[in-house]
Amino acid sequence: MKAFDLKRYLERRRRMVDSALEAALPAEEGPSSRVMEAMRYSVLAGGKRIRPILLLAGAEAAGGDPAALLPFACALEMVHTYSLIHDDLPAMDDDDLRRGRPTCHKVYGEAVAILAGDGLLTYAFETLTDPGAVSLAEPSLLNRAIFLLARASGIFGMVGGQTADVLMEGQPVTPQTLFFIHSRKTGALIQASVEIGGILGGAGTEQLTRLRKYGEALGLAFQIRDDLLNVEGDPDRIGKPVGSDVQRKKATYPGLFGMDGTKRRARELLRVALQALEPFDEKADPLRSIACYSVERTT
Amino acid sequence: MKAFDLKRYLERRRRMVDSALEAALPAEEGPSSRVMEAMRYSVLAGGKRIRPILLLAGAEAAGGDPAALLPFACALEMVHTYSLIHDDLPAMDDDDLRRGRPTCHKVYGEAVAILAGDGLLTYAFETLTDPGAVSLAEPSLLNRAIFLLARASGIFGMVGGQTADVLMEGQPVTPQTLFFIHSRKTGALIQASVEIGGILGGAGTEQLTRLRKYGEALGLAFQIRDDLLNVEGDPDRIGKPVGSDVQRKKATYPGLFGMDGTKRRARELLRVALQALEPFDEKADPLRSIACYSVERTT
Repeated sequence: MKAFDLKRYLERRRRMVDSALEAALPAEEGPSSRVMEAMRYSVLAGGKRIRPILLLAGAEAAGGDPAALLPFACALEMVHTYSLIHDDLPAMDDDDLRRGRPTCHKVYGEAVAILAGDGLLTYAFETLTDPGAVSLAEPSLLNRAIFLLARASGIFGMVGGQTADVLMEGQPVTPQTLFFIHSRKTGALIQASVEIGGILGGAGTEQLTRLRKYGEALGLAFQIRDDLLNVEGDPDRIGKPVGSDVQRKKATYPGLFGMDGTKRRARELLRVALQALEPFDEKADPLRSIACYSVERTT
Repeated sequence: MKAFDLKRYLERRRRMVDSALEAALPAEEGPSSRVMEAMRYSVLAGGKRIRPILLLAGAEAAGGDPAALLPFACALEMVHTYSLIHDDLPAMDDDDLRRGRPTCHKVYGEAVAILAGDGLLTYAFETLTDPGAVSLAEPSLLNRAIFLLARASGIFGMVGGQTADVLMEGQPVTPQTLFFIHSRKTGALIQASVEIGGILGGAGTEQLTRLRKYGEALGLAFQIRDDLLNVEGDPDRIGKPVGSDVQRKKATYPGLFGMDGTKRRARELLRVALQALEPFDEKADPLRSIACYSVERTT
């Protein structure tokens, strides 16, 4: 792999996504303006934009034009942010801080936070099928992309993983259950981001299978890194207190396999991710570089 | 209009929709099975299934085959049920009873109820784009249907209306605000049901404009009837206490226009709805009959 400036790439992409999100999110006067304000507050709070970037990089790897796929990339960030807003609610993880700022329900109250989450999830599908966006993709490919997004976000993905996570809190967890939670709660949407990018970017069947495999390994690597950062990360960099998983007796990789075993697992996943990309040319370098980053990142 | 047995029609359609919902909703063993159980509990609690039936009747009016559109009809009921689950939450309307049974959060707890709502909303879009369902509709028509559903459910529809409703509780309300809340909170999804049926049933532009107009009048008529029933309905038939709107100082039609003014408005909407259907043949009789029912119903 030749030298690739990932930092610059991520920064450029993040700016593209941020502007597109800023433009895509509605702001309206009137009796429901508060929910739009809450949606903007949470989406525009910053964040790595890793899911939209993965969609664009997946499309790029398949030879597609990332700039044409920005509305679809934004939809992924809306779904991701909705899940954070709902996860932070008092009835769920009851978190006061997110990305170093008060959580949505702390600022807007519980009712508006629930509605802001609902609004973002729905608006993601509205964005995907907006007449302007629809013209950018072949209709049957778009339907496939919507199916993948819904599946990865729903009861067989994120919602299912979060259910298990909430219900298992404080209970002893087997490696099987941990894998169930990780792969669904975080892994599914990351995997879908890459695959949707591939589909909309024009990937063939063999390429898609490989992108799916890459995305699966990457998704798990990301969650494992999150678990590690929760133990040994810098609270100022990650924007929340360290050690909260242990305090809540949350199921984590380090809790089950120790720090060394967990780091070994992360390196193994990196190998799998890179191997899946072998037949791709240099247009897949962003994906390769993101895989390396996923096991090394400090935020 | 020739004699049309609406009671029999609604009963037959309701059974079709109930079986399809029963088959469409997943039930799985495993760590997240509880959220699926909660979803089934709320969706299969009964209900008039008026939105799915309107989709089927809208398709019928345009000459489409209702039986082929059942998956799309089910998706509407999933979205409707998700909105009921979230509206009932303690942070929102804090309701203990729904359709005569304990509400979702009373049975499964708040966390699982929030997730069951999220799960149903997402599963609606999964159902719409399931490879099996996709084959039943032309891809670009399906994308339009998804857009309409998302728009009617989201911040410019149901979520926006519910936000205004929650934030305005206890405050004096103008007719404009009442119209804003009604048309978005209930009206938008009812209108979209008819229009989506028309689109998937193959309606032309002129027919669609008329179905949209019919749906708009019908949606308002439904909400007005709900307001009336909350004042003078039979609590045993509607499955919840009467007078709760007044107690909560909710914005209602009778509160603003009195009982007589409200009934007059309902009759006016019926006239508009029937007029919109004038050029349609007898295949639109179910829609005509449902409009009459909407202003007379007792449940």
